[in-house]
Amino acid sequence: MAVNAAPLPSFFPVSGVRLGTAQAGIKKPGHDDLVVMELAEGASVGAVFTRNAFRAAPVLVAEKHLSVTAPRYLLINTGNANAGTGEKGMQDALQSCVWLAGHTGVAAEAVLPFSTGVIGEPLPMACIEAALPAALENLDANGWARAASGIMTTDTLPKGATRQIEIAGKTVTMSGISKGAGMIRPNMATMLAFVAMDASIEPALLQSLVATAAEKSFNRITIDGDTSTNDACVCVATGASEAPQIVAESAALAEFEGALNGLFLELAHAIVRDAEGATKFVAVRVSGADSSGDALAVAYTVAESPLVKTALYASDPNWGRILAAVGRAGVSGLDVSRVSIHLGDVCIVRDGGRAADYSEALGQSVMDQQEITITIDLAMGPAVETVWTSDFSHEYVTINAEYRT
Amino acid sequence: MAVNAAPLPSFFPVSGVRLGTAQAGIKKPGHDDLVVMELAEGASVGAVFTRNAFRAAPVLVAEKHLSVTAPRYLLINTGNANAGTGEKGMQDALQSCVWLAGHTGVAAEAVLPFSTGVIGEPLPMACIEAALPAALENLDANGWARAASGIMTTDTLPKGATRQIEIAGKTVTMSGISKGAGMIRPNMATMLAFVAMDASIEPALLQSLVATAAEKSFNRITIDGDTSTNDACVCVATGASEAPQIVAESAALAEFEGALNGLFLELAHAIVRDAEGATKFVAVRVSGADSSGDALAVAYTVAESPLVKTALYASDPNWGRILAAVGRAGVSGLDVSRVSIHLGDVCIVRDGGRAADYSEALGQSVMDQQEITITIDLAMGPAVETVWTSDFSHEYVTINAEYRT
Repeated sequence: MAVNAAPLPSFFPVSGVRLGTAQAGIKKPGHDDLVVMELAEGASVGAVFTRNAFRAAPVLVAEKHLSVTAPRYLLINTGNANAGTGEKGMQDALQSCVWLAGHTGVAAEAVLPFSTGVIGEPLPMACIEAALPAALENLDANGWARAASGIMTTDTLPKGATRQIEIAGKTVTMSGISKGAGMIRPNMATMLAFVAMDASIEPALLQSLVATAAEKSFNRITIDGDTSTNDACVCVATGASEAPQIVAESAALAEFEGALNGLFLELAHAIVRDAEGATKFVAVRVSGADSSGDALAVAYTVAESPLVKTALYASDPNWGRILAAVGRAGVSGLDVSRVSIHLGDVCIVRDGGRAADYSEALGQSVMDQQEITITIDLAMGPAVETVWTSDFSHEYVTINAEYRT
Repeated sequence: MAVNAAPLPSFFPVSGVRLGTAQAGIKKPGHDDLVVMELAEGASVGAVFTRNAFRAAPVLVAEKHLSVTAPRYLLINTGNANAGTGEKGMQDALQSCVWLAGHTGVAAEAVLPFSTGVIGEPLPMACIEAALPAALENLDANGWARAASGIMTTDTLPKGATRQIEIAGKTVTMSGISKGAGMIRPNMATMLAFVAMDASIEPALLQSLVATAAEKSFNRITIDGDTSTNDACVCVATGASEAPQIVAESAALAEFEGALNGLFLELAHAIVRDAEGATKFVAVRVSGADSSGDALAVAYTVAESPLVKTALYASDPNWGRILAAVGRAGVSGLDVSRVSIHLGDVCIVRDGGRAADYSEALGQSVMDQQEITITIDLAMGPAVETVWTSDFSHEYVTINAEYRT
């Protein structure tokens, strides 16, 4: 029941990147659940990881490996998060890197492991060992679409985005895939997004651009407020295109950054559109805040309120619930008599009370839509932030009550 | 579907307090929805109100009146919250006080108004004006039970508690009623609780005792994380018993405070047991925290996690969701390798990973119960806090999607 989700695009292959997918039997028999992403030598990698204090073993290992050497392979499994698994989990994550390194002749530190799925179960190591050769055999520059399916958990649809831009007359290609439908309130990045491009880019600049792009995309979505233990977003620049290297002074930097941010946002929105049980795609935009922090506090409080989310599911313009959520967001110095709230183009609250020209029919006409923007103006300052979310449906409860059965 | 809710007790009447209830037609035709509580002259009143920035008109009026003179009447309606109603809402709340004052010969400032129900609709003033005489006619010291029903909104059961203690050989009586099943994450107090006793108590001490009791009862429950615009908890001491006045130095203070705290907790728990769609009554106890603030941050993050709540609904010992919630609670300096988690008496996480002696069957045996305690030890310091909550069921979504239909 994804909300206006675009079909998977025809991915532009990215020179220097090949993807291979296999059935390891971790998630369910007969489903792709193991993906290998191969990077050409010399590729730069930027990455951001979850800030959950319980960081999964693969997150810890990937961060460590990233600090040691340039990655040559990403190894991703779904069906098991290898989180809350203690020392054994660390050994398992490392062992899977060792196996892949053995097949490919690279150092184990050149492999970054990623896992997603149930928390607290041991990683089924025999499944991974057995399936690695099959994944390596079908490594292909056109492997993006199958890989997009191979990293899904409760996702109903694979998610991807692809684009090309011109830099100094040369074509630069960016492609990426993401997954996630629940346990989504990323804090630094979301589990999981993998983006690659053939641009050449100075590594420190790449890391900075990735952190900024993730902050305004994956870090602005929430489905249930639950930050995953395994969130990770990785962006690879292979440098295989003929375009000149992008550095901080490049004239093309602005256009490049715009394209990167757009690609990230498209992948992040795809996650919200496929949110567990979602029937609405909702933007909560807060303007007139004193600070970005205040704007985000209000936006997340509204976006995560179970009462607002069930009203959205019911297409009920029960704006009192939005107002109550704004009021509990903890903004100091808020003058409620100056707050205004719009539902789409319809002003529902003006100067802290119901707008004189508001009618239930006007509110209903917006609520009946599948894509809704809630705009809250605090009339305090210049800060503006937008957060994207979904509604809470019966299907959400069903999916999460039956997740492990 | 309330969870092990006790039937309404046989209330001990409180000397100096009479309650009258009527059908005003605000909520639904043929239902009690207007309650008048009459206080004898000389009664002391302690009260705490919501900290939501959007405080409803009756909350603002009640606070103001309380600062001007000793209250003689409380006027409570359900079916309409008179919140988000601007200047007109203030006039309406005041006008209802003026009417009641006119009937009873007191000053309008001696009336405290309270409203609960839908936010953003004008208060139906004609209904209130017409029903006031009926409510006053049936004022009765034995009116507690009918009043408990008369303040219900989405509650499935009326809620009350009553007890007697001895002070200096004299009997002191306490009785109270509460209501609430959704929009429950009180911040200072919850909508609505009314407690009365015939003890004599020094007013400043009463206010301090009420604030403390509310902090450890109503301010420790959450159903959906949504703080109401109308929360209020009022406690009356009529002084009509023959027991000596309670002051800060009284030998009986500890016993009195224990009884008051117990009564408050009973009323607060009754709200959680009757939570919208609840099938479980859950205590989340966090120990070993550096501070009360850290303990509460962890407890509320777990208690409000939609993923934890749907797992509770499914009786699924999916403890990875508890661990992920602990990890995102924002406790600085948390050493996850020292954290332990118990489900009832069963240790599920020890030293940050699955306990060696844990089995799914052991976890299931606790999850199958209707009353569950989740204990999280952070191994950092001495602070301990407990929060009570309910689960998230299909029925919760149904109730909140259909609230206004």
